[in-house]
Amino acid sequence: MIGIDMKALTGETALWLASERYVELAQRALEMRESSYCPYSGFAVGAALLTEEGRVYTGCNIENAAYSVTVCAERTALFKAVSEGERRFSAIAVAGGKADGPAGGLCTPCGVCRQALREFCGPDFAVVCPITDEKGTLSELRIYALDELLPDSFGPDDLGR
Amino acid sequence: MIGIDMKALTGETALWLASERYVELAQRALEMRESSYCPYSGFAVGAALLTEEGRVYTGCNIENAAYSVTVCAERTALFKAVSEGERRFSAIAVAGGKADGPAGGLCTPCGVCRQALREFCGPDFAVVCPITDEKGTLSELRIYALDELLPDSFGPDDLGR
Amino acid sequence: MIGIDMKALTGETALWLASERYVELAQRALEMRESSYCPYSGFAVGAALLTEEGRVYTGCNIENAAYSVTVCAERTALFKAVSEGERRFSAIAVAGGKADGPAGGLCTPCGVCRQALREFCGPDFAVVCPITDEKGTLSELRIYALDELLPDSFGPDDLGR
Amino acid sequence: MIGIDMKALTGETALWLASERYVELAQRALEMRESSYCPYSGFAVGAALLTEEGRVYTGCNIENAAYSVTVCAERTALFKAVSEGERRFSAIAVAGGKADGPAGGLCTPCGVCRQALREFCGPDFAVVCPITDEKGTLSELRIYALDELLPDSFGPDDLGR
Repeated sequence: MIGIDMKALTGETALWLASERYVELAQRALEMRESSYCPYSGFAVGAALLTEEGRVYTGCNIENAAYSVTVCAERTALFKAVSEGERRFSAIAVAGGKADGPAGGLCTPCGVCRQALREFCGPDFAVVCPITDEKGTLSELRIYALDELLPDSFGPDDLGR
Repeated sequence: MIGIDMKALTGETALWLASERYVELAQRALEMRESSYCPYSGFAVGAALLTEEGRVYTGCNIENAAYSVTVCAERTALFKAVSEGERRFSAIAVAGGKADGPAGGLCTPCGVCRQALREFCGPDFAVVCPITDEKGTLSELRIYALDELLPDSFGPDDLGR
Repeated sequence: MIGIDMKALTGETALWLASERYVELAQRALEMRESSYCPYSGFAVGAALLTEEGRVYTGCNIENAAYSVTVCAERTALFKAVSEGERRFSAIAVAGGKADGPAGGLCTPCGVCRQALREFCGPDFAVVCPITDEKGTLSELRIYALDELLPDSFGPDDLGR
Repeated sequence: MIGIDMKALTGETALWLASERYVELAQRALEMRESSYCPYSGFAVGAALLTEEGRVYTGCNIENAAYSVTVCAERTALFKAVSEGERRFSAIAVAGGKADGPAGGLCTPCGVCRQALREFCGPDFAVVCPITDEKGTLSELRIYALDELLPDSFGPDDLGR
């Protein structure tokens, strides 16, 4: 896990270029919280998924009175992309918090979404988690490799043994 | 449930106009089977969702080695649409069959998808199920009202009691 | 759907014997609401599943901060039974309502649970929904055949086509 | 992650006592593979969950023609236990492999099950994964802390922010 303080990065060009893309992705995730349908939890989440070729697919959480039918923002973005023929991805940003306020603190993907990403993404796929201040301004990015969030995972190879 | 024989409808103008739109929707669902990710079941499903304002969102089934993370075509289409801000829908078409062949016989939505649609769609929302011949040519449409497929449902009002 | 008024049934012996068993099943479902883990919805549901040989398995809803991981009472009862080697069932009772009060009005299974039952139960499998008065006393039973609640369903035969 | 070679442990009494309990739990998980309902994947999984007070609840995977309705062995065991009033757990064993053979290699919980356990279990909750030889004899245990398998998780506290 790499904590990135945006200001500190100025000047470190290579990493900055990588993180600049992640900042853009994080902004898209933050914006997508507006589309959230979360009448039951009141917790709005947005996500933005980056393909290897540079296209971005966005998603939000969509709840259901039968709670188990709920889908998270990350999976919404992934399902959209896969249904458009995409199969190779490099990063996802996810931002969540109370619907009537800024994202605020860290919101990482739930286990279901980690597993959904695992089907299509490699161990180095980046999971980007923005943290904002009380005004909703991006103040920090935390970046995980998928394999850090779902180590020793159950995946496609296991079924074929 | 209303079975529609396409040839028989010629000449019945009003119903034909309605069903013509459903034929188009069914064709989109059939095409979307190509995007299916179904390495485990080998069963490819496509869906096309029509908003009240006439926009169409498409989806396919997307499986996962951890089977419960799988999503159906209907939900993929619904999640895409809701994440784009859509909230009002009039019909969905769904077509499924073995991945290496034509859709063939009737394939109705599973209970999970009926419940997902229930959150946003009224009782008269149309569920359109195309049937094809062995060459994949559309030969029949079966049209259900959502309330027929999920009668006496559990929905948003139940939680608020 | 058959609405049963308990008092009216007195004297109709055969049906009464059948419904007496359902009353017992409904009572077990109502009791199981006590075990519910529902910190997010505050909606407590209980279920009791009857095997063809007369054994009863009970369940309650169990929620999760990641809403889609939530399981309903009916599935909890079904999963318990199947994991104990049961495969043939004749009826399930389900009762739900706010956790701090009586079950009250009708609470039918969600689409996910209808689909879960569909895998193991025939079209005539009975779904028993108790209604209580404000003191929690059973006042009415509504009984559905599974096929009424999930007509023209997607099931095991569809995949094998 | 601690790999335990059973023979090597003989003589290291304290750890042996702990691991002996895990061996017993692993055996229960291996036995539960017999109850699996897995007509679609042909992959049979068993689980055994240990409460803090020493009771054991078992489960197996239960599939559904609508794949997303499938439940894993670990969740079956957890749901059973919680529905019986249990809320505090210390370990779970899980064993999976092709239905017509021995468990064989490592089978860890999917992301959904890691998330389900997260709701009730602390970071030190033990996840015990047995490995068997070709005859099905237990040859090794791998033991994870839950927090290793689902680090920086999304949980109950996140919703309350």
